[in-house]
Amino acid sequence: MNAIEPGFQFASDNTSGVCPEAWNAMLEANSGYAASYGDDPWTKRARDLVREIFEFDCHVYFIFNGTAANSLALASMCQSYHSVLAHQLAHVETDECGGPEFFSNGTKLLLVEGEGGRVDPAAVEKVVRRRSDVHFPKPKVLSITQATEMGTVYRGEDLDRIYETARRLHLNLHMDGSRFANALATLNVSPKELTWKAGVDVLCLGGTKNGMAVGDCVVFFDDDLAYEFEYRCKQAGQLASKMRYLSAPWVGLLESGVWLKNAQHANAMARLFAERLQAFPGVSVRNNVESNAVFLQFPPAVAAALRSAGWHFHDFIGVGESRLMCSWNTTEQEIEAFLKSLADAIKQNP
Amino acid sequence: MNAIEPGFQFASDNTSGVCPEAWNAMLEANSGYAASYGDDPWTKRARDLVREIFEFDCHVYFIFNGTAANSLALASMCQSYHSVLAHQLAHVETDECGGPEFFSNGTKLLLVEGEGGRVDPAAVEKVVRRRSDVHFPKPKVLSITQATEMGTVYRGEDLDRIYETARRLHLNLHMDGSRFANALATLNVSPKELTWKAGVDVLCLGGTKNGMAVGDCVVFFDDDLAYEFEYRCKQAGQLASKMRYLSAPWVGLLESGVWLKNAQHANAMARLFAERLQAFPGVSVRNNVESNAVFLQFPPAVAAALRSAGWHFHDFIGVGESRLMCSWNTTEQEIEAFLKSLADAIKQNP
Amino acid sequence: MNAIEPGFQFASDNTSGVCPEAWNAMLEANSGYAASYGDDPWTKRARDLVREIFEFDCHVYFIFNGTAANSLALASMCQSYHSVLAHQLAHVETDECGGPEFFSNGTKLLLVEGEGGRVDPAAVEKVVRRRSDVHFPKPKVLSITQATEMGTVYRGEDLDRIYETARRLHLNLHMDGSRFANALATLNVSPKELTWKAGVDVLCLGGTKNGMAVGDCVVFFDDDLAYEFEYRCKQAGQLASKMRYLSAPWVGLLESGVWLKNAQHANAMARLFAERLQAFPGVSVRNNVESNAVFLQFPPAVAAALRSAGWHFHDFIGVGESRLMCSWNTTEQEIEAFLKSLADAIKQNP
Amino acid sequence: MNAIEPGFQFASDNTSGVCPEAWNAMLEANSGYAASYGDDPWTKRARDLVREIFEFDCHVYFIFNGTAANSLALASMCQSYHSVLAHQLAHVETDECGGPEFFSNGTKLLLVEGEGGRVDPAAVEKVVRRRSDVHFPKPKVLSITQATEMGTVYRGEDLDRIYETARRLHLNLHMDGSRFANALATLNVSPKELTWKAGVDVLCLGGTKNGMAVGDCVVFFDDDLAYEFEYRCKQAGQLASKMRYLSAPWVGLLESGVWLKNAQHANAMARLFAERLQAFPGVSVRNNVESNAVFLQFPPAVAAALRSAGWHFHDFIGVGESRLMCSWNTTEQEIEAFLKSLADAIKQNP
Repeated sequence: MNAIEPGFQFASDNTSGVCPEAWNAMLEANSGYAASYGDDPWTKRARDLVREIFEFDCHVYFIFNGTAANSLALASMCQSYHSVLAHQLAHVETDECGGPEFFSNGTKLLLVEGEGGRVDPAAVEKVVRRRSDVHFPKPKVLSITQATEMGTVYRGEDLDRIYETARRLHLNLHMDGSRFANALATLNVSPKELTWKAGVDVLCLGGTKNGMAVGDCVVFFDDDLAYEFEYRCKQAGQLASKMRYLSAPWVGLLESGVWLKNAQHANAMARLFAERLQAFPGVSVRNNVESNAVFLQFPPAVAAALRSAGWHFHDFIGVGESRLMCSWNTTEQEIEAFLKSLADAIKQNP
Repeated sequence: MNAIEPGFQFASDNTSGVCPEAWNAMLEANSGYAASYGDDPWTKRARDLVREIFEFDCHVYFIFNGTAANSLALASMCQSYHSVLAHQLAHVETDECGGPEFFSNGTKLLLVEGEGGRVDPAAVEKVVRRRSDVHFPKPKVLSITQATEMGTVYRGEDLDRIYETARRLHLNLHMDGSRFANALATLNVSPKELTWKAGVDVLCLGGTKNGMAVGDCVVFFDDDLAYEFEYRCKQAGQLASKMRYLSAPWVGLLESGVWLKNAQHANAMARLFAERLQAFPGVSVRNNVESNAVFLQFPPAVAAALRSAGWHFHDFIGVGESRLMCSWNTTEQEIEAFLKSLADAIKQNP
Repeated sequence: MNAIEPGFQFASDNTSGVCPEAWNAMLEANSGYAASYGDDPWTKRARDLVREIFEFDCHVYFIFNGTAANSLALASMCQSYHSVLAHQLAHVETDECGGPEFFSNGTKLLLVEGEGGRVDPAAVEKVVRRRSDVHFPKPKVLSITQATEMGTVYRGEDLDRIYETARRLHLNLHMDGSRFANALATLNVSPKELTWKAGVDVLCLGGTKNGMAVGDCVVFFDDDLAYEFEYRCKQAGQLASKMRYLSAPWVGLLESGVWLKNAQHANAMARLFAERLQAFPGVSVRNNVESNAVFLQFPPAVAAALRSAGWHFHDFIGVGESRLMCSWNTTEQEIEAFLKSLADAIKQNP
Repeated sequence: MNAIEPGFQFASDNTSGVCPEAWNAMLEANSGYAASYGDDPWTKRARDLVREIFEFDCHVYFIFNGTAANSLALASMCQSYHSVLAHQLAHVETDECGGPEFFSNGTKLLLVEGEGGRVDPAAVEKVVRRRSDVHFPKPKVLSITQATEMGTVYRGEDLDRIYETARRLHLNLHMDGSRFANALATLNVSPKELTWKAGVDVLCLGGTKNGMAVGDCVVFFDDDLAYEFEYRCKQAGQLASKMRYLSAPWVGLLESGVWLKNAQHANAMARLFAERLQAFPGVSVRNNVESNAVFLQFPPAVAAALRSAGWHFHDFIGVGESRLMCSWNTTEQEIEAFLKSLADAIKQNP
């Protein structure tokens, strides 16, 4: 048996490679000639599979990454003088370098608080009600992340309150689903329950973190909002010429159900990891592992020792905790290797 | 031996799949964990290879596609009130849906003519000299395509005149090199001769048409222009999280020299195709196959019959000719199959 | 009697000052306090007057200048991936420094030809039909200028053909009316005949060239297009805090009918000027003085001599002629003074 | 003597009209013909006066309003992926409807706290240090308002700390001087002490609130930042054709020194108003009248009664207080009239 070399295993769920099912579909697609820009059979099949899974005749676009997916989706709903409400820890705010503002030519993000990374509907209402004059951007979209950046999920009743608030305040509802499969795996409901039946107008469905090499998917549950979206993608450099390499992996993930299995595995590993971590003295694990993230606090010297040992992990912005991510290919051996390093680090830094 | 089924073989050089060397590098990269966003060994290796090949300590960025590469490169050189001079058939004008205008927040393209798809330096000068007042966008960049959209190339003396003109008019020089390898294969010089030694400030080097699945490369030969380009890419949704899948194929293509072999093969097939086509009555082949494109005129009934037979090809915008493209995996059998269909079509439409 | 000093009299219709009626209204408005940002009685009155004059319950916005008026109006109809068709000599193309592209974040102008500065509907149709794929901006608006940059007007039958074409091609119709009053004066019909009854969706009505200090007016004849336009103006720095100084002059111009009288005067002076100019040997006057512009060709030495004498006038871009403009306060004495200089110049340069 | 009618006297300093000196200069300018777009003698004279007053060979641009001035100035210093630090109550954040984000195509505002509306340098440092990765907009500009939106001023030592912080963090320094004259009047120093000697790179100097009808002024103390700014203004619809009407009032204000006298008067009236208001039971006046604003809290019933009586005033966003503004033409009689209403309101709502 090979020893596990400390490294990027838990740094993010995008440090993993491509899962076998996605790879094999891509390999199968790599045969002969195919129409470009999405007029190929793989793309058609992938679109149909998304529609089957969501039980809805939705509009489906395959694009390159999550920043572009979120930004383009928001731009399709906003003019430059509009605003988007989002949690202060939302990826669109903290990790897309102003992508939403750029794609929409200036749309402002209005930040709201909320426990566990979940938007608090009352906070949304407060921000929207605060102003109604022409001197401030007009609220137009509520953006939520499922699962959240804090590793929590919105349950059915959370979504009901969100939707009720959005509808009442005339806000469209955007869901950043970069880890949608992880939320689905936790909540064990059908995809439609978390999306169009919950009032979601557009979902950005993550592929990369679910086991693909490149690619996310924008799913519109509203015909009007999808109007001319293909032009928006093309102009913004998000229409792949050899589209089959973006769409075939979706076929591999969705046809086999492996998108859900990958997420279930990642979630299970995160729960296991959290349980094991709690046993260590001085390590404080946040009690809300609802997807594939573990948030915790190490003593500073311990964190430093782990990094010296070669482990990479992030101190999460605005939270003051470290984040360990599991993915579709996290193994128990990798967790054990980390825990071994942790035990050593604690011993050396008592 | 399998019969060749008419289809997308000659529709474009992006209807082909991924070449073995690019694929195998991607496969090799698909192992274990890697730092995301380009901090991985494959990306480092690919960057170094680009530097070796161009014999220059250039700045190298791997992004998703050609529209984004061109648009971001132009945006790095232009403010919204600037203008870019380009040939009226340039891809940035005709096939990027206003991408350059979008990424730069309004930079205007000023179109110039020129034989064979090549920018005429005198036409550039005329357009630049026409205005120098604040009521019209200020010329800032000259964009040329190598090989051109008409399948021709700029030779050394052409580039000298272009550079002399650009320098005199204080224009930065951008090269759309979506088929740079094809030009290189034709001209049989070193990459530096066609780029930084010829005054090119930034090159968009095409990977997709050269045999990759996804990805182009922006190469800056000017430090100042590259400043903060990584922020520009990130904000515009062009920073891949699992970057190794964009950079490893470059390692496969460049390390083995196969990027040039692929282009040589495509060019050779195009020349063969052109020669064979000239033998057909009523078929008029444009006499400038300098890369992997064949432009020709079929009698309309013949063109219709070929399409009925299942062949796909484009009538080129603004040119009034049909375009047949060869690629890294075009075979003589495929050419023969097309010619067989052509002979049938002519027989039926004498 | 004072001798006329050669200068900016004919350089443009924006070298004139403010006409008495506009000035007096502004003076009257300069009394006491008033609600800012347009909630004042002058702005209400000006809006009502525009509605009365157009016999339509239109949406009326007072903004700072013509570039902003055109650009904002186009942006309200276009997304970044759309295109606007306009005459190649249109002000939006030649004299707004890419304003329309900037305000709309990249909307492309597609240029068409047409005699006398008027858009040729057949040319519009040709450009729109040329492409219908996602790789090129989608045509969305047809922009015409009334009176045109060449000093001609669209007559009723011209507008009928324009409207029929726009409607058939699903294009909204924008009218740059920076010299709308001059066209109205020539055609001697009611304002509605040239606007909403002719299918115009939005009119940019010029105030500055009609005798005001600052300000143009955007008039929407379509409720949907005007939706949220006040936010667009505010964000773009086009909402005046002391709005009364922009709206009161409109009251002065419209209430008294002087907007039309000013234009009638300017047109009459231009006709007179053209007639008198035709008498001079070697001076070729374009035979289409339909508003307040005279286009003509001087022998180069004569033009130079006139400029040496102190007269300012423009050589019109793309036309190769000189342009002399008359305005609300052009006098016969000024024309005579110019003609005197012309006679001298010809004598000295036979 | 006329009774004072309750109204917009204290609603803002933009509810006032044009002061005599500005008006008379405009009147004088309204004579004959003048070169357009700023090539006239009035504009030259106004530019020279600004340079004299600041004792610096600065670049001076006259544009239409403060939102545009701030937004264009920030856009000249920022790319779309940059960020601007500003106080959370700054006008650029709270009252320009996303103008800065629009003009710069997405530049993000990062908000900091600070007592009395003044940016706290330590808070700036904290925000800048928080992130240095490519996933978040790069801090580029620190924007301060002098006098602040809370009616306070930055004194010399405040500016020293601001500049030291900005320089150390490589931030350009922008000053929103919509009420710069009011700050100057309070601090009684020379204009240079508050600007280029204090490290300010660009000042947006307010004219409207100082007594003009329309117009603000952008002053660059850095040659590089001003480069091509005239193109930026033109494209953004901020280049007036009849520029003399924007520049002449500056001559009127600056030549006579009345810009300072207007501000001194407004400040004195505000101090008087504050003193008088403090005498009323239940009225709590904020103890920092350093310019022309008075912030105070009325009992809600009293505020309602004042509004019923016809007085307009704003409840300031995010502050929870009412704001009463004085201007160049505020009179003691107006203040007395307000106080009379206040006494009545308190009597009726004990």
